[in-house]
Amino acid sequence: MKREELLEAVQREIPGKRWEHTLGVMDTAVKLAKRYGADPVKADLAALLHDYCKAWPVDKQAAVIRDNGLPQDLLDYDKELWHAHAGAWVAEHQLGIEDKEVLDAIRYHTSGRVGMTLLDKIVCLADYIEPGRDFPGVHNIREIAEHSLEKALIAGFDSTIQFLLSQHKKIYPMTLMARNSLIDEIAGRRA
Amino acid sequence: MKREELLEAVQREIPGKRWEHTLGVMDTAVKLAKRYGADPVKADLAALLHDYCKAWPVDKQAAVIRDNGLPQDLLDYDKELWHAHAGAWVAEHQLGIEDKEVLDAIRYHTSGRVGMTLLDKIVCLADYIEPGRDFPGVHNIREIAEHSLEKALIAGFDSTIQFLLSQHKKIYPMTLMARNSLIDEIAGRRA
Repeated sequence: MKREELLEAVQREIPGKRWEHTLGVMDTAVKLAKRYGADPVKADLAALLHDYCKAWPVDKQAAVIRDNGLPQDLLDYDKELWHAHAGAWVAEHQLGIEDKEVLDAIRYHTSGRVGMTLLDKIVCLADYIEPGRDFPGVHNIREIAEHSLEKALIAGFDSTIQFLLSQHKKIYPMTLMARNSLIDEIAGRRA
Repeated sequence: MKREELLEAVQREIPGKRWEHTLGVMDTAVKLAKRYGADPVKADLAALLHDYCKAWPVDKQAAVIRDNGLPQDLLDYDKELWHAHAGAWVAEHQLGIEDKEVLDAIRYHTSGRVGMTLLDKIVCLADYIEPGRDFPGVHNIREIAEHSLEKALIAGFDSTIQFLLSQHKKIYPMTLMARNSLIDEIAGRRA
């Protein structure tokens, strides 16, 4: 599919406010890509598709995970994680996206992962800080994003972990491990 | 070794304030054991030995982990975790403790683990709430401990995770997984 067709396809799946959020993530991801030396075309594409399955009924998201051998442990954790993995699968198998970097950035945009690529970081961070976002600490994360992608992302994950603690909800171990991995990355750069 | 000899041996390793802390953990662990149906003799023994290596130089703690095939990933995380695993090894190989339940309660008293035993929970919680402890939220955890071992322990792990977040430190994944496991345990009991 061409970009114009993808834009229409995504807009059909996520109308209204979620579409505005996607436009915000696209804009922010492209800016971050230019700022931090990633490919803005890939950032735009991954951001466009990142929430493709977000408005689907959760049962449909779970079915994509269950029926296609995606990580089954996701189903034991917060439903918010599901659309990202389902979205990467749909992007590859139904929308014709072949670029592994783009697919991974979609797949890990909510959970994060150990050893995030530059594109993973950009899409995940753009999702936290696009202009429509408003949660405690978002201004601080936007400020940190001006000078460190990794520190901003750690602050983003911190806010997610804090939120889940406050809700007495389970926390997906990979998110914690993504945060640990970013701390190691910063320390390694310093050493 | 008899209990009297063990008392003397521990006191030699951890004099002063830490010994008072150990006495507090012993007292609290025995009370929790009686309250929640665990063996008070095992709770007393595990609590007595739980901090055996705590006052050792961290290099000596690390050497026990490195030289005896204990989980090497511990060395990538907070030093606070090391004395527990080192202590269980020393209890087994130098102090003649053979009871696996007691050894596990020593081993996991700081990190926790998935599927904690009743004795694991009691020693870990007693370490959080013994009367000498004073940290934000400890009163709340003591109150919860009156009616739920698991909820109190979750609140304890929450306070540890909050503290490590605030310090920008890595968090040992097993601690998060211990918390997740306790949440599942409570939910399963409810279902």
